[in-house]
Amino acid sequence: MKNNYIIPDEWSIIENTFDKQKVTASESIFSIGNGYMGQRANFEEDYSGDSLQGSYIGGIYYPDKTRVGWWKNGYPEYFAKVLNAPNWIGIHIKINGEILDLNTTDVKDFYRELNMKEAWLKRSFTAVLSNGNAVQIESLRLLSMQHKEVGAIRYSIKPLNFSGQIEISPYIDSGIKNQDANYDEYFWKILKVQEVEDEAFILSETLKTGFVVCTGMKNKFSLNGEEVSAEKHVEKLEKSIAFQYKFEVKQGDELTLFKYATYMQSMNYPVEELCQVARNTLQNATKIGFDRLLELQKESWQKIWETADIQIEGDVKAQQGIRFNIFQLNQTYTGEDARLNIGPKGFTGEKYGGSTYWDTEAYCIPFYMATKNKKVAKNLLLYRYHQLDKAIENAEKLGIKNGAALYPMVTMNGEECHNEWEITFEEIHRNGSMVYAIYNYVNYTKDYEYIPQYGMEVILSIARFWVQRANFSNDKNKYVILGVTGPNEYENNVNNNWYTNYLAQWNLNFAVENINYIKKKYPEDFKRIVKKRNLKESEIGQWKTVADQMYLPYTDKLDLFLQQDGFLDKEIIPVSQLPASERPINQKWSWDRILRSCYIKQADVLQGMFFFENHFDDKTLEKHFDFYEPITVHESSLSPCVHSIIASKLDKPDKAYEMYLRTSRLDLDDYNHEVDEGLHITSMAGTWMSIVQGFGGLRNFDYKLSFAPKIPKEWKAYSYKINYRGAILQVYKSQTEAKFTNLSDVSVQIEVFDKTYVLEPQKMVRI
Amino acid sequence: MKNNYIIPDEWSIIENTFDKQKVTASESIFSIGNGYMGQRANFEEDYSGDSLQGSYIGGIYYPDKTRVGWWKNGYPEYFAKVLNAPNWIGIHIKINGEILDLNTTDVKDFYRELNMKEAWLKRSFTAVLSNGNAVQIESLRLLSMQHKEVGAIRYSIKPLNFSGQIEISPYIDSGIKNQDANYDEYFWKILKVQEVEDEAFILSETLKTGFVVCTGMKNKFSLNGEEVSAEKHVEKLEKSIAFQYKFEVKQGDELTLFKYATYMQSMNYPVEELCQVARNTLQNATKIGFDRLLELQKESWQKIWETADIQIEGDVKAQQGIRFNIFQLNQTYTGEDARLNIGPKGFTGEKYGGSTYWDTEAYCIPFYMATKNKKVAKNLLLYRYHQLDKAIENAEKLGIKNGAALYPMVTMNGEECHNEWEITFEEIHRNGSMVYAIYNYVNYTKDYEYIPQYGMEVILSIARFWVQRANFSNDKNKYVILGVTGPNEYENNVNNNWYTNYLAQWNLNFAVENINYIKKKYPEDFKRIVKKRNLKESEIGQWKTVADQMYLPYTDKLDLFLQQDGFLDKEIIPVSQLPASERPINQKWSWDRILRSCYIKQADVLQGMFFFENHFDDKTLEKHFDFYEPITVHESSLSPCVHSIIASKLDKPDKAYEMYLRTSRLDLDDYNHEVDEGLHITSMAGTWMSIVQGFGGLRNFDYKLSFAPKIPKEWKAYSYKINYRGAILQVYKSQTEAKFTNLSDVSVQIEVFDKTYVLEPQKMVRI
Repeated sequence: MKNNYIIPDEWSIIENTFDKQKVTASESIFSIGNGYMGQRANFEEDYSGDSLQGSYIGGIYYPDKTRVGWWKNGYPEYFAKVLNAPNWIGIHIKINGEILDLNTTDVKDFYRELNMKEAWLKRSFTAVLSNGNAVQIESLRLLSMQHKEVGAIRYSIKPLNFSGQIEISPYIDSGIKNQDANYDEYFWKILKVQEVEDEAFILSETLKTGFVVCTGMKNKFSLNGEEVSAEKHVEKLEKSIAFQYKFEVKQGDELTLFKYATYMQSMNYPVEELCQVARNTLQNATKIGFDRLLELQKESWQKIWETADIQIEGDVKAQQGIRFNIFQLNQTYTGEDARLNIGPKGFTGEKYGGSTYWDTEAYCIPFYMATKNKKVAKNLLLYRYHQLDKAIENAEKLGIKNGAALYPMVTMNGEECHNEWEITFEEIHRNGSMVYAIYNYVNYTKDYEYIPQYGMEVILSIARFWVQRANFSNDKNKYVILGVTGPNEYENNVNNNWYTNYLAQWNLNFAVENINYIKKKYPEDFKRIVKKRNLKESEIGQWKTVADQMYLPYTDKLDLFLQQDGFLDKEIIPVSQLPASERPINQKWSWDRILRSCYIKQADVLQGMFFFENHFDDKTLEKHFDFYEPITVHESSLSPCVHSIIASKLDKPDKAYEMYLRTSRLDLDDYNHEVDEGLHITSMAGTWMSIVQGFGGLRNFDYKLSFAPKIPKEWKAYSYKINYRGAILQVYKSQTEAKFTNLSDVSVQIEVFDKTYVLEPQKMVRI
Repeated sequence: MKNNYIIPDEWSIIENTFDKQKVTASESIFSIGNGYMGQRANFEEDYSGDSLQGSYIGGIYYPDKTRVGWWKNGYPEYFAKVLNAPNWIGIHIKINGEILDLNTTDVKDFYRELNMKEAWLKRSFTAVLSNGNAVQIESLRLLSMQHKEVGAIRYSIKPLNFSGQIEISPYIDSGIKNQDANYDEYFWKILKVQEVEDEAFILSETLKTGFVVCTGMKNKFSLNGEEVSAEKHVEKLEKSIAFQYKFEVKQGDELTLFKYATYMQSMNYPVEELCQVARNTLQNATKIGFDRLLELQKESWQKIWETADIQIEGDVKAQQGIRFNIFQLNQTYTGEDARLNIGPKGFTGEKYGGSTYWDTEAYCIPFYMATKNKKVAKNLLLYRYHQLDKAIENAEKLGIKNGAALYPMVTMNGEECHNEWEITFEEIHRNGSMVYAIYNYVNYTKDYEYIPQYGMEVILSIARFWVQRANFSNDKNKYVILGVTGPNEYENNVNNNWYTNYLAQWNLNFAVENINYIKKKYPEDFKRIVKKRNLKESEIGQWKTVADQMYLPYTDKLDLFLQQDGFLDKEIIPVSQLPASERPINQKWSWDRILRSCYIKQADVLQGMFFFENHFDDKTLEKHFDFYEPITVHESSLSPCVHSIIASKLDKPDKAYEMYLRTSRLDLDDYNHEVDEGLHITSMAGTWMSIVQGFGGLRNFDYKLSFAPKIPKEWKAYSYKINYRGAILQVYKSQTEAKFTNLSDVSVQIEVFDKTYVLEPQKMVRI
């Protein structure tokens, strides 16, 4: 896959060869989605080769029974995973009686394009069947951004060297499984399989969680551009339904199927109405017609690109890479529904269960905050607010009481659903990023009201957690936090992880500061919060005490904060001295060896310094970067971006660009040979940050927006847009100048290299 | 189960009620074994209630496919487990057509006795069937110590209130499963089911490991003491074979079946001869006859008790408890076969896979060394010697090379078969106990030759491990050992566990000392060892360097060795202040809470001080005992014994007795509500140590045998025997005196309370 497999193009992802080895990888890369649902680039027609079939509906999950070797107290019984949803794309094709199957057919002129500007997937090829018949196929499909519940396919067949019979059987199928099911079970129960006139419906229900989905389809045909109809034969099975149509065609004819499909689900409609709503939706979609749906799709995405696009001049692969990332992020999450969130693989695979991680707060919120209106980021915050009581239950299970909250490491519905003790129980720093995201949001949007209205409850419940989770060490005469795993998951069960302790200390101070401010400025909210969360005055004092006396591991000798207690007992050997044959260490070394080594999976101390860059001078930042980066193996997709940003800040352009390259085309070039499992959606937000916050130098501390734009020497120029408090700003940076353009009707104040500028409406400032 | 369920008796384990809730627990407690095979006390006749069927053959295991939630590099693919072997005890009984099943029958006068002196299991009861027929049943069975491959059952039925038909169908059945199978599979493949005259055989083979076993049976009958014969009807199924006999009996008759059975297996005979050897063995057993087999059994066990018995006067429950432990240890391992070892549950259940742990070296060797001739302990050492190359492979898998050995945490054949990273990869202290066992053996037996002949290779391979596993800390200017789990498994992945570091340091010094001594005194062995293990002179220097500079965590403030780095950061709250509702913490607390607490599962620092008591003065020992014991929860069955021994040494008789009580009747009184899963065989050796080394004060440092006998105030007197270098010594201790009797023909030198005595042959010394 690496290198030249994907054709460089500014706006499209293109492949022009058919390689059976790469089918599953391309299924991930060419995925489409619209926030409501997603679809891997599985072929419509039958395919007997390797494939990971994947159709997904946002928020529909299944709590699979946990599989462990050795049970530990407190493990969750279930691991919630995103469900493979009923197949809506399938079309069986027979040419003169022979099944069209690319695995057994001679395939020529294969071409596939994911057009990111307009958000559609096209595929065309010529197939020569073993009966000698040659057909040319073109399919084009989309998941409508305008009509979220609608998917549409245009599928054309042209007989090249024969006249004869073509049999087309579009179908829907609920007899699907998850490949990652722990016990190889079916997760769907079929309630009804039904045809109504020329529409077909399957009503199915997820086991345990009881989500009900009506999957529907409706088909139209044209021959050489003229609508035609044909008699259908219905094949109704226990879990699927197909409509079989037979056409007699002549050489050179073009037979086209328009397949309209829909998922209608019980989170949005009463169960008893699902099939009727599905019917209405299908009929409406058919009335709109495929061509108009395609136009609407272009319009919807034009609006998205208007604020989200980044342009890079002089490097088409970089341009393709960043647009791919922005495109996939927008396909995954649109921000309209606070019940949804961003899974690390979005709608492109099963791995990581499609659930929510701290990736959202640490990496995704800045992207959505800057490229959408503030409601989107707010919805991401509200997602956690709505799950606060579950986070309190979760802490209780671990013996931490009195309304303290521990947000889960991995969740679909607020409950923890991961089960490695060293992660689930110990990677508690995730709690800190929940508060950081609130802080970040308020700084950027100036929507302080969010804190008294919602955020404070989360902040105080997390403060309660830190106070109990820390303990006083008589030996150190400080509060310590024992037995944690930091962001660097190549350490487990360490004491006093600097990042965790620093974040906890900051959380506690932030809680004190805000509760006092709310008491003064929002007395009604204060009263409500105190009552609802049973807050005692003495608790605030406790928060302050623990914050003031929090221990932070530090070494005099090197004048450095230490990743954790005892870090300097390790042998410190830079990654550059590790033989290539021993990397990635997570594949080459046993776990104990990784743990006792100095090697860092992803930013840990540096993650903290990135979050709180305003707390450290450049000299301190550089000293820590120079110590930790050389022993960092970047074996998490979330690692390079943070390092790229800091390197930009520290004027280390080569390092910044090296790190940027490792993140920007991670999936397109399949660096880690795992793209077949799905895309790294959340780290795509990190790539966006590498440009906007890294090269672009955007910061939003202290309610201010500041920039320190730089540019890699490999590029001619780049530009990006952001939505800042309702104003659209465009930032352009070439090798010689920087331009800031205010595309809106309100003036905006910014800082560039520490100098203040006021951008008047529709005006540009050149620097 | 606790308290009065088991009837106190000096020589027998007795129950006299039938409680369906206790069937599985009693199946464990009343287990029989002869080192070659073992049998849970399952009923011979059909039983439809809860039961854990268990027949086991020493050394026959199955590598079950590992089940984990999250795979870590280096995990073994298989978890070897002891196999449930074909059922040889089964007898279907029908009384006038009705099946005898204690689960559905009215049972009266139930009585079960495990006679430990003579090693047989008896069961008698009256059953009233639903057809009104009352029968009196008595069964007696044994696994012959003399004819190891033979099991025999005498099963008598007396019709009490009717004359009619009794149908008896003895059978053998290879259609058995392990309850702990990870994927609910069958582990046996049936090769042949066969009857030859009045014998039946099943030849079956374990999947994957390919052990072949011929299970055979032969049956005889008597009526009112006179041999009778009956026509048999053969029921041959795919996996089992039964011989069905029908007898017409009169009220008051006594019909008796003598069932002789055998396992013949491919570790001992060529596969093609197995069934013929089984045939010969069955015919021979039948010729010897049941009564004579029973007599031989008594004779065999008389010899065992001659050297192994401990007598306690004035406490029948203590007497019963210690004899039960000695009995079970002797049923589990007889020391004749260096391919076998001692599983934590022996032949009494499936849990812990029936595999070998460091329990053998740390707890069992002292018992077998003192109660058997030295060949038995030597065989236990040779077991590890024979597995040295596998231990070297095991270390290589973890990246530790050049002939370094890491013995597995759990093994059947030398390969690691446990898969929790914090145990498998990190609980490396087990390596140290391999060397300690050699040291202990040589001290006791004075068989120094063992080291040049075998032991040195193990010692040097382990020294190589420590040298690589330690690393130099620039910060501490010492060698450190990072990322380990000590004996206290309530800590994971700690740095510088004192026990591990101390043991490693001692191992290294011991290696240097012995290799130098061998070079001088056993030059031929030296040459052989150097060549075979490719030993370089420089390595010896390295061992010394690392030993000399080994870091041992210590606190000035308290003048204490610390269990590990950072231990004093914990909140130190004695166990006595923990509410009862929170204990055992391994059931009540989440794993992270246990880890960051100060609570100790089993002796850790104190285990080291117990091993090397001669390195520490009493004041030091007491200081550490007073610090660590109060925070020890003793939630491992191996914990109380070590603490009991140290408490005895430190003249803390109440603590010593309290700890002794927690170990002595652990299974008989089912303290932990888990005896249904099997007995705690290895911790039984710890109980023996609590008396002999604890109250009795036996030590064998520096090639000397010393005593410091004490007695709990609860006892009148106790005595035990030991085999010391071929001489049998009896030690008697009452409240007023101690007597040492030399029962052999050679004189023996001992120390009692630091004073030297020479015990002349057949003479007694009173102190």
